[in-house]
Amino acid sequence: MKQRVYRTELTPVSFLQRSALIFPEKTAIIHEGRTYTYREFAERVNRLASRLRALGLRKHERVAFLCPNTPALLEAHYAVPAAGGILVAINNRLSSSEVDFILHHAGCSFLFVDHELAHLVATVDLTGIQTIHIQDTGLADDPYEQFLAAGSPEPVESWLADEEETISINYTSGTTGNPKGVMYTYRGAYLNALGIVIETQLNSNSVYLWTLPMFHCNGWCFTWAVTAVGATHICLRQLNPAQVWDILDREGVTHYNGAPTVHIFLVNHAKAHRLARPATVAIGGAPPSPTLLAQMKQFNIHPLHLYGLTETYGPNTVCAWQPEWDTLSEDEQARLRARQGQVHTTAGQTQVFGPTLEEVPRDGQTMGEVMMRGNTIAKGYYENEAATSQAFEGGWFHSGDIGVWYSDSYIELRDRAKDIIISGGENISTIEVEQTIVQHPAILECAVIAIPDGMWGSAPKLL
Amino acid sequence: MKQRVYRTELTPVSFLQRSALIFPEKTAIIHEGRTYTYREFAERVNRLASRLRALGLRKHERVAFLCPNTPALLEAHYAVPAAGGILVAINNRLSSSEVDFILHHAGCSFLFVDHELAHLVATVDLTGIQTIHIQDTGLADDPYEQFLAAGSPEPVESWLADEEETISINYTSGTTGNPKGVMYTYRGAYLNALGIVIETQLNSNSVYLWTLPMFHCNGWCFTWAVTAVGATHICLRQLNPAQVWDILDREGVTHYNGAPTVHIFLVNHAKAHRLARPATVAIGGAPPSPTLLAQMKQFNIHPLHLYGLTETYGPNTVCAWQPEWDTLSEDEQARLRARQGQVHTTAGQTQVFGPTLEEVPRDGQTMGEVMMRGNTIAKGYYENEAATSQAFEGGWFHSGDIGVWYSDSYIELRDRAKDIIISGGENISTIEVEQTIVQHPAILECAVIAIPDGMWGSAPKLL
Repeated sequence: MKQRVYRTELTPVSFLQRSALIFPEKTAIIHEGRTYTYREFAERVNRLASRLRALGLRKHERVAFLCPNTPALLEAHYAVPAAGGILVAINNRLSSSEVDFILHHAGCSFLFVDHELAHLVATVDLTGIQTIHIQDTGLADDPYEQFLAAGSPEPVESWLADEEETISINYTSGTTGNPKGVMYTYRGAYLNALGIVIETQLNSNSVYLWTLPMFHCNGWCFTWAVTAVGATHICLRQLNPAQVWDILDREGVTHYNGAPTVHIFLVNHAKAHRLARPATVAIGGAPPSPTLLAQMKQFNIHPLHLYGLTETYGPNTVCAWQPEWDTLSEDEQARLRARQGQVHTTAGQTQVFGPTLEEVPRDGQTMGEVMMRGNTIAKGYYENEAATSQAFEGGWFHSGDIGVWYSDSYIELRDRAKDIIISGGENISTIEVEQTIVQHPAILECAVIAIPDGMWGSAPKLL
Repeated sequence: MKQRVYRTELTPVSFLQRSALIFPEKTAIIHEGRTYTYREFAERVNRLASRLRALGLRKHERVAFLCPNTPALLEAHYAVPAAGGILVAINNRLSSSEVDFILHHAGCSFLFVDHELAHLVATVDLTGIQTIHIQDTGLADDPYEQFLAAGSPEPVESWLADEEETISINYTSGTTGNPKGVMYTYRGAYLNALGIVIETQLNSNSVYLWTLPMFHCNGWCFTWAVTAVGATHICLRQLNPAQVWDILDREGVTHYNGAPTVHIFLVNHAKAHRLARPATVAIGGAPPSPTLLAQMKQFNIHPLHLYGLTETYGPNTVCAWQPEWDTLSEDEQARLRARQGQVHTTAGQTQVFGPTLEEVPRDGQTMGEVMMRGNTIAKGYYENEAATSQAFEGGWFHSGDIGVWYSDSYIELRDRAKDIIISGGENISTIEVEQTIVQHPAILECAVIAIPDGMWGSAPKLL
């Protein structure tokens, strides 16, 4: 393809190149007492990429990382695509056999593994997989640092020919069968990251704390979004609420993310207090309760409710705030904010459909399946044509989530398709029951499941 | 091309569709006592697009608008691409013969002309050009409103097959020869608009005042950027400083833009005062003096210095603020901010090259030509192969601007290539001389030109 002046393939690698050019001396990464500037971040990425190439990495070969939220995993998000490989960031809460499945299903030729997670691959056959251990010390004798030291600080030549090539594969576990490898493209990663920058108002003064796992949808694309604006990443090996509160204060954190559970633990911790600097905090992964949303605001933590799945690069919809809601009661505000909302700026379309792909009425009551399409939808499942055809049938991604659609276009989840309880012929949404129960001040979290019932067929049970 | 779930062509038309979905009742446009919500904005655009189709518009036909900053011209930025046409927003300060040239060179099949500018086409042969007059009253008897009334409020089917199709042609006048038609793509318009949203921190609470002409690089892509976040546009037929100060206060304006001249008139007006709500204001089109930049900050107007050309969709570089500059003197801060800086997030690369496309040293002294490439560079000149080949030679767009490059990667313009004064064999930058002169408090603006000189060949003269 002839190089055209007005065409460059979209790639999040360009975000780091730009920030290293414009903010070379700015702190890019903070981690356990060490810091890296953007110049150092870029140089480490170049070293990692060139070393992978020198060790024989070919285009589109899979490179696995099994790590907590460390600088190494962040560096992988730039170095692996810069080298032309495909990043496989493995969920570090999986079992050894699941990790084994992923490494071999993806056909990884490299594995970088943190010392705390090495036990997960101790019994795995790693024949043919070059394995590098990470001590996460940043010191010269750390095998990972030795790996970088053997690389070149200069950038490698890009092999990217088409922005629709695969940048990463994120394995997602259903309730049945083996994990499926969700393929992200360079284009989708770039665009979803920009959508996130815009929705969360990230800028070069932002300080982002890694409470969300980076392996989870590539950290909802915040791995790329934070760098795109030259903001600061604070890594975090594990989620210790007391430590999180200390860091929020000490570093002036402006943004962090997590599932409702993370936020529940934080706001109910003994160290919880009103922050001096306001923080914008995205909640996703499960619907937050109105109770939680109301709690967070008291601590100067401004919740932004996002919704998405691994197949949507993480955040797909956002519950955008409407000015006229300002005058409503706190309860009513929290109820409105607990809805999943609508697509962010670079996402495509998200709708609620009935069984024959017809839109359900926007009445806030009629349930249907949430479906999406657009540039921030995954390319398919790696080496799994059957699952791909099924999930993308009819030109839409079938999320498997059941929701309703309001007259203001906002969607609200009712359940996963499989979690709807059919009791006495009626659909019962476990989420609705759960949201009602957690309004009681003595209850932090709860779950409602279906149990067999002689009279009703199924009945809801509170755990 | 088969419809793929994960691929949608990038188009700024999607920004309006999304904002109309999510913010239907929010004020999208304010103009002389009338307002349109996002629902109304989208409906008017649909009407304009469907009426153009009904009157025979074919794909890629050119549709000219000759208007001040009115709702009609803003609507054209969505309706013409939605209909599949190419927008030609004509500079309303041109002469009748230049307008004539553009209408016929572009081969426009439609012309929408504001009542105040009708005289510019009074003597032009409009055979074959369907001409619609705009009274800009918003009333039912306005010919433009009648045109909309005859259209359908429903969206037309998109004909866009490739995001690299041309969305608009912006004619730019050099000092010699006929104007050249700079072609923008859907992709470039979409990406430059997002870059602008990020740099200027536009969000759904923003209020944007149209002090910058919309015909100028499609309003530096703010026509699309403001809509992308569901912010409010305030139109403005003419730039009256007293009126601008009234609107800034009354509407709580958060953003407006202009060339240095615009800002000089504003900050030196009798009504100038410190704004209650801070405004972020982009300056571009010519290098602002450090004097002006320092003045603006006193009024709670935060200048963002941008640089670009018609061929870069307007803004291409931004003088990004560095935290360590906060401690410098006001003068030093203004001097640093007067530099053109480096590329915004979605722009590609901007460099300073010597005669054989080699980078000049980053010493802040060696002059070279500023050159760019990337997704936000124009596709070429419409029906002008010779000019296109010349300007895009060697894989870079040759800006014709002469600049230097500092060790921190920021560029600074010294002059247009043709404006450098060679006096006694030495290069004299007219900009450097001008910037020095305007530091005197009695001088608002000045220009330095070359005059013939018996001893030195040329010599600088102050006007």
